[in-house]
Amino acid sequence: MSLHGKSLLAGVLGQTGGRIFHAVNPATNERLAPDFHEASAGEVTQALDAGAAAFSTYRACSGAERAKLLETIAVEIEALGDALIERANAETGLPPARITGERARTCGQLRLFAAVARDGSWTDARIDPALPDRQPLPRPDLRRMLIPLGPVVVFGSSNFPLAFSVAGGDVASALAAGCTVAVKAHSAHPGTAELVGGAIVRAVATCGLPAGVFSLIHGGGATVGMAMVRHPATAAVGFTGSHAAGRALFDAAASRPHPIPVFAEMSSLNPVFLLPGAVRERADALAQGLVGSFTLGVGQFCTKPGLVFALRNDETHAFLEKLAAAVHGAPCGTMLTRGIRDAFVMSRDKVTAIPGVRPLAAATAISDTARTQAQPSVSIATAADFLAHPELATEAFGPFTLVVLAETPGDFAACAASLEGQLTATLHATPLDLPMLRPLLAALEQKAGRVLLNGYPTGVEVCQAMNHGGPYPATTDARYTSVGTAAMMRFARPVCYQGLTDDLLPDPLKNANPLGLLRLVNGQPTRDPVR
Amino acid sequence: MSLHGKSLLAGVLGQTGGRIFHAVNPATNERLAPDFHEASAGEVTQALDAGAAAFSTYRACSGAERAKLLETIAVEIEALGDALIERANAETGLPPARITGERARTCGQLRLFAAVARDGSWTDARIDPALPDRQPLPRPDLRRMLIPLGPVVVFGSSNFPLAFSVAGGDVASALAAGCTVAVKAHSAHPGTAELVGGAIVRAVATCGLPAGVFSLIHGGGATVGMAMVRHPATAAVGFTGSHAAGRALFDAAASRPHPIPVFAEMSSLNPVFLLPGAVRERADALAQGLVGSFTLGVGQFCTKPGLVFALRNDETHAFLEKLAAAVHGAPCGTMLTRGIRDAFVMSRDKVTAIPGVRPLAAATAISDTARTQAQPSVSIATAADFLAHPELATEAFGPFTLVVLAETPGDFAACAASLEGQLTATLHATPLDLPMLRPLLAALEQKAGRVLLNGYPTGVEVCQAMNHGGPYPATTDARYTSVGTAAMMRFARPVCYQGLTDDLLPDPLKNANPLGLLRLVNGQPTRDPVR
Repeated sequence: MSLHGKSLLAGVLGQTGGRIFHAVNPATNERLAPDFHEASAGEVTQALDAGAAAFSTYRACSGAERAKLLETIAVEIEALGDALIERANAETGLPPARITGERARTCGQLRLFAAVARDGSWTDARIDPALPDRQPLPRPDLRRMLIPLGPVVVFGSSNFPLAFSVAGGDVASALAAGCTVAVKAHSAHPGTAELVGGAIVRAVATCGLPAGVFSLIHGGGATVGMAMVRHPATAAVGFTGSHAAGRALFDAAASRPHPIPVFAEMSSLNPVFLLPGAVRERADALAQGLVGSFTLGVGQFCTKPGLVFALRNDETHAFLEKLAAAVHGAPCGTMLTRGIRDAFVMSRDKVTAIPGVRPLAAATAISDTARTQAQPSVSIATAADFLAHPELATEAFGPFTLVVLAETPGDFAACAASLEGQLTATLHATPLDLPMLRPLLAALEQKAGRVLLNGYPTGVEVCQAMNHGGPYPATTDARYTSVGTAAMMRFARPVCYQGLTDDLLPDPLKNANPLGLLRLVNGQPTRDPVR
Repeated sequence: MSLHGKSLLAGVLGQTGGRIFHAVNPATNERLAPDFHEASAGEVTQALDAGAAAFSTYRACSGAERAKLLETIAVEIEALGDALIERANAETGLPPARITGERARTCGQLRLFAAVARDGSWTDARIDPALPDRQPLPRPDLRRMLIPLGPVVVFGSSNFPLAFSVAGGDVASALAAGCTVAVKAHSAHPGTAELVGGAIVRAVATCGLPAGVFSLIHGGGATVGMAMVRHPATAAVGFTGSHAAGRALFDAAASRPHPIPVFAEMSSLNPVFLLPGAVRERADALAQGLVGSFTLGVGQFCTKPGLVFALRNDETHAFLEKLAAAVHGAPCGTMLTRGIRDAFVMSRDKVTAIPGVRPLAAATAISDTARTQAQPSVSIATAADFLAHPELATEAFGPFTLVVLAETPGDFAACAASLEGQLTATLHATPLDLPMLRPLLAALEQKAGRVLLNGYPTGVEVCQAMNHGGPYPATTDARYTSVGTAAMMRFARPVCYQGLTDDLLPDPLKNANPLGLLRLVNGQPTRDPVR
């Protein structure tokens, strides 16, 4: 499958002539063909203007029509076959099996959001019928539902070339909510982006929708992305990546003449608390599970456990020996890009250079720089050091974790209280740990978007009950998830219709309830028609 | 009832010694006793630190406990009796009947939010039980609900001394969601604030809750409010007032090291579109209704219609004559403060000085400056002028509205398309207007948080289906309402519990469903227990 290297601006190929960049195979450090062409400022405006124009049409589509688009995108992605797997593998170094699994998740997400859009319950329909005889004043007929927010800008992420990129969760949830989308392709996997972008363009055409519903925009630096965030028609931004980039986008969006929300999922240490009973009962399984979790995907998950807290005692000592043994046997893996590997080494070395931090173990395999590899390792510090040096809680995005040993349960609790916002927080415990567990649980649910007991935070289920978010700096907006069906809520806003006749009301609010929704009528949930 | 003039810092009286300010009776321009003492920086910190500490306790209270607090506050406010009505009347110039009605609404809101908190459905419980045998990977047990966001800062508003101030909708919804609250009293009605604040302090004590659940903080300028927004524990801000002040708070909150959401309800023109059939059929009722709406409360409602669009024709000419006659007979009313009156006159005169704008009518009564009165008036401009001078769409907070005459339906549509974000947009039409009505409705629902047919935007019902919000600059966050039960959503965030045992789960998520909630289990709404 040959690649053209150009942006897809409302279905039209972008121009050559701008800055040129290339994908690089991190496993070989070879430059990959073809040339990719950064979009010009004019092209960005062209694409986002087209998105704004298409929004007027697309927002009025029924849930069933939006569902058909999402399902057609999934079919088109599957039809790309091995070419997609091969290109994504070449551009990211992620193994074909992982890419294949991620493709299944991506298409599964598209179909899940399609089902939610078709069902229509997500619009949260509420009806308070008129009370013309009420005293002292009559009540007018009031009906409220969620409507699409406006054109959305999404940034592809480096670590999920499919599931959090061009047709990933942000795009699927925005399209399901009725918003048009412009994606800034991640410059590390532009070919993968082009393939998936082409699939979306074909699906938009197949469904007879305006081409402006979707654009894919290339750019190697910050200029293109910032122009997309600052375009007057942009109504919201979805981003997964570093804290520095996420905060820059947030600041740009907040300082617009008309500020817009930025849903940036940025950085998280995903602390794990090992309670004494669990360490005593299953040190071996904990050690294996932890190494499996922090080295999964070469440590390149936003939910990677980067901090592990335990009480200093003999059982923990035995656990640490098992942990060290497991780390020794861990393989070195190819990271996504040279830049990500260098940033990982720098962050890790900054943490390990802090006084009091000492190495616990590293993989015996030697990392091959020519293959952009990183070596898994674990360091160790005391709770006193952790509390004295807040910079120990710095995310090193890669296969590294820091074990923090507390002298007392009080230290344990102080460490929990000192944490910043997190995507996840994990507790390992037995029923004997209950007195310690309860207060820790109460403290950690104030810090994190997801709290786990006796599990590992990597692996994020896509379902109704998932929350992938958390207080700052884990995200810029703790009130929303970027994974699971509730992700659509980011791209919608309520509108209330007062006194409208039935023929003018949207389907979710019509008297007859033609969509069969569970609606709140006079405050009571019901599927009955009104009157 | 004697007033002490001091802040209420977690149940403790503030100190004297800071900057002193006074309330003024706008109907007489007399200074009212006593001295009010601006809180010091240390007092602000003391109150907000206490709020953060109390949050750990209050967030863990059940919905029934929060409901009891809200209901006790309502009882305490009612027990203030005529003293509250008299003080609020003296400080705002609003007539006793209006204050009495507003008190009923305030207590009604408190009881409505109490009912919602007690019921518990607002927590949006979702359960995806474990699927241990699923291939290729088992699904863990995942349960998600909304939990309180953290300590909330609320700014009292000038135009609703009860319903949007110390025990108003923002405070009631934050307390119902499980957040502690610190209120910055509006400096124009500090005595009213003290009375209501005292009622809340007594209710907190009666309910056996930590005093830090509530503080009332006095201050005459921006310093105190900014310190409250910048305090590290503050998790969200509720505000109703001017665009300049709301934007300043938003900017301060967005530039914090940890940004927080600001729900500022700021400015809105509340455009009214009179379609030709309606003008033909009921010019008299339209003229009467419009004058009633734009002069209600001396034009000091955020939903006051400040722009009226009509097609230029003979029927509109007849309507304008009726409108002028109704305006002639409108009374001059006392505005809330001298500053608000001066700002009104300045904004109105700025609009009426724009080339092409000419007066249509003014009340024949003369406004009495010594009684801080304003004279109702209407001016008129053409759609061409309106489109050429965006500054014609400037809010003049008071009894003034601008009629814009369009030559063609195309001009009408162009005016609608040119509008900025609004709280409300209103259409008056008959069935004959349907061809014009449908596209206008589609355009206006993209501009406004509430769209009305054949009604008037003033008068905001407090119910499940209300939306009082809208795109910027009507508010800083179109995704939320500040009126109605959905207002609680501003002060909550989701958390997902993975793999927790039943004894550790909060009540809304326990297997047995002890609260009897309608929950989403495996994506299906049900009140059944799990398993």
